Amino acid sequence: MAEQSVLILKGNIIFTPDARNFKVYRDSYLIAVGGVIREICPALPAQYQALRIHDYTNQLIIPGFVDLHTHGAQFNQRGLGLDYKLLDWLNRYTFPEEGKFSDPDYASRVYEAFASELIAQGTTRAAVYATVHLSTSRLLFAVLARRGLGAYVGKVNMDANCPDFLKEDTAKSLQATEEILAEWTGNSLVKPIITPRFAPTSTRVLMDGLGKLAIKYDAAVQSHLAENTGEIEWVRELFPEHREYHQVYQHYHLFGRTPTLMAHCIHLSDNAMESMKENQVIAVHCPDSNMNLSSGIMPVRKLLNAGVKVGLGSDVGAGHSLSMPQTMIRAIQLSKIKHALEAEHQPLTLPEAFYLATKGGGSFFGRVGSFEPGYALDALVINDTAAGWDMEPLEKLQRFIYTGTTADIAARYAAGRKIG
Amino acid sequence: MAEQSVLILKGNIIFTPDARNFKVYRDSYLIAVGGVIREICPALPAQYQALRIHDYTNQLIIPGFVDLHTHGAQFNQRGLGLDYKLLDWLNRYTFPEEGKFSDPDYASRVYEAFASELIAQGTTRAAVYATVHLSTSRLLFAVLARRGLGAYVGKVNMDANCPDFLKEDTAKSLQATEEILAEWTGNSLVKPIITPRFAPTSTRVLMDGLGKLAIKYDAAVQSHLAENTGEIEWVRELFPEHREYHQVYQHYHLFGRTPTLMAHCIHLSDNAMESMKENQVIAVHCPDSNMNLSSGIMPVRKLLNAGVKVGLGSDVGAGHSLSMPQTMIRAIQLSKIKHALEAEHQPLTLPEAFYLATKGGGSFFGRVGSFEPGYALDALVINDTAAGWDMEPLEKLQRFIYTGTTADIAARYAAGRKIG
Repeated sequence: MAEQSVLILKGNIIFTPDARNFKVYRDSYLIAVGGVIREICPALPAQYQALRIHDYTNQLIIPGFVDLHTHGAQFNQRGLGLDYKLLDWLNRYTFPEEGKFSDPDYASRVYEAFASELIAQGTTRAAVYATVHLSTSRLLFAVLARRGLGAYVGKVNMDANCPDFLKEDTAKSLQATEEILAEWTGNSLVKPIITPRFAPTSTRVLMDGLGKLAIKYDAAVQSHLAENTGEIEWVRELFPEHREYHQVYQHYHLFGRTPTLMAHCIHLSDNAMESMKENQVIAVHCPDSNMNLSSGIMPVRKLLNAGVKVGLGSDVGAGHSLSMPQTMIRAIQLSKIKHALEAEHQPLTLPEAFYLATKGGGSFFGRVGSFEPGYALDALVINDTAAGWDMEPLEKLQRFIYTGTTADIAARYAAGRKIG
Repeated sequence: MAEQSVLILKGNIIFTPDARNFKVYRDSYLIAVGGVIREICPALPAQYQALRIHDYTNQLIIPGFVDLHTHGAQFNQRGLGLDYKLLDWLNRYTFPEEGKFSDPDYASRVYEAFASELIAQGTTRAAVYATVHLSTSRLLFAVLARRGLGAYVGKVNMDANCPDFLKEDTAKSLQATEEILAEWTGNSLVKPIITPRFAPTSTRVLMDGLGKLAIKYDAAVQSHLAENTGEIEWVRELFPEHREYHQVYQHYHLFGRTPTLMAHCIHLSDNAMESMKENQVIAVHCPDSNMNLSSGIMPVRKLLNAGVKVGLGSDVGAGHSLSMPQTMIRAIQLSKIKHALEAEHQPLTLPEAFYLATKGGGSFFGRVGSFEPGYALDALVINDTAAGWDMEPLEKLQRFIYTGTTADIAARYAAGRKIG
């Protein structure tokens, strides 16, 4: 066994093999071979004794965070214009900002800063929207790959109902998407994902073409669903041939025919939830965004009870922070408000939110987000900066999630490689 | 004019003289004499030319933040046990933690850390709960005064319905409160505030005595009101002679007879709101706490429309962070959720939330929280760490509020003195 292929981390190891409880291994060794977890041991097995140990004694070792919905191109607008709602915010802030991504210099600056902040915040895997621009979307793939992050990156498709400076020719949009699929489908940690922005900015021809590409390349799909009541009404007007919003995507093979992420999912019928479950479409809960844009409260407990898979997304720039701990807290807080309003919606617990932001969302990337054997070694080392005195590891974890900053993350690993 | 009495800050000056708009003075001079603001000038008047200028060109200068409700003694439990609701959380976490404050060594460590974090977060004025313990409450006064912060500090009174290790003898509780009032009433930036924890942990005799002390010393009062439906029901059982919760306080001269803060105010009748307005009782909105403990949504727009004065509180430890920018955001977010549920509740805007956390809450401290002439010079200097490129001062402010950290605050002044 060559030394470089074995990674040994020592510390207080915590993760959520299921959503009910944290599992804690105090003062133990997390051993990965070839970037894949082999085992957790209380003492170091004989065959590893000669190897280097990354000694994080008294620190926490937790899985890296998974952000299932964010917009790299909106990184430089986070926190701005949030006194507006979705459609006004898109037209006044987001579309003009995305227009700047025809400029490779600007795109490069923003995407580098975005990648740095993802890493700083402890996100090791993310599903990311670029913009409609082919050349700078390629840039985003390259930046994330070079920084060692795991990601799905989507060149956005829009050929309707958006400003002219962002509106694509349908055939060229499909061609550009196929170029990216051809270039990036493979073994890289950064993979392509088909990304119609949402139904209202897509023609039927575009969605038809994208669905066919999804099948041809067995490519993942991401889009937005049922974020805002005005948006839902607009979809009804634009696509009167479908009774419900999700059926528009479904009709074009963009709803679970291949692995699919749908962001928001706030205003869904029971039928739509059933369809998400059947088609294994992951609902991505973006609580900060949903509050910032007055979109509403995703009924996360109802979705979970209906058997829908759920992950968490920062949704920068409608969300203002790439921090997944803050996203977890906001998901918990919003679920508590839902519970205060309708008692039968039990709030998310902390281990549940942690699960959603690690193993739950991580499932989209394969075996990611847990420390069970066979999982990719995505890990964060959490130091004691924010902790109190005489705290147990699980209390330190609570403190970090609620009050931690990037400075509290002492080391980051993605797929067995140290990053940052 | 002696040089030491004049303070001149130069930079992009922003504040909210009213709740509707930010006022911006680009590249201007903020001049204070004896800790009190004299004027803002685009060019330096002749009489100050020889004096030292604190040059923060290109940085923002904004008022210090005002936190109208927080618990110093809960600083070391923030983020812990937040899967519980109010009454369970009190019994399982908060009361045991507060019990530790019989120990001066422990209290000193926590209160020093609390003061450091207040300063780091840019809070220059705060209304703070200590615990029932006289000696360590004195310690909190001393720590905050030494660190140069403006504060109201309350030794907590509890003589009923709490664990024996915190339950006070009524007469001794009143005597201890009077000792503190006698010691600290005066010109210090740190002032005493009468602090019955809340009605359920107070006997009638205690509240009667506290009301008399409030009048005798013309002392401010703070407590909790209508946070949680279970709490309200409990008050109804304990004090059946009063129709509404606020009338319990009112009966004992603890509801506006002297300046009064009431935290939470979530579940209030129109009559209670009218009474708050008439008695000029300030409602302290603690949005993170209200979410963390599943308490509900304070109808902040309704209170404002009813003419009730409103301030913001971090409510650590039920709130997890002393950051007033984060508290502003959460207040805005929660008001947007309220709006999404009931459209007539218009959301808070960013200048409104900023106003609540500066001039609005600052009014409890006198002329505090604005840069108008006659106001105390409480100011923060915000650097560009988190800003994007080519941003206007107001965009930088938005970015700071939504994404800033303690590292983005380059300097802090309270009552004309640099602190930190």
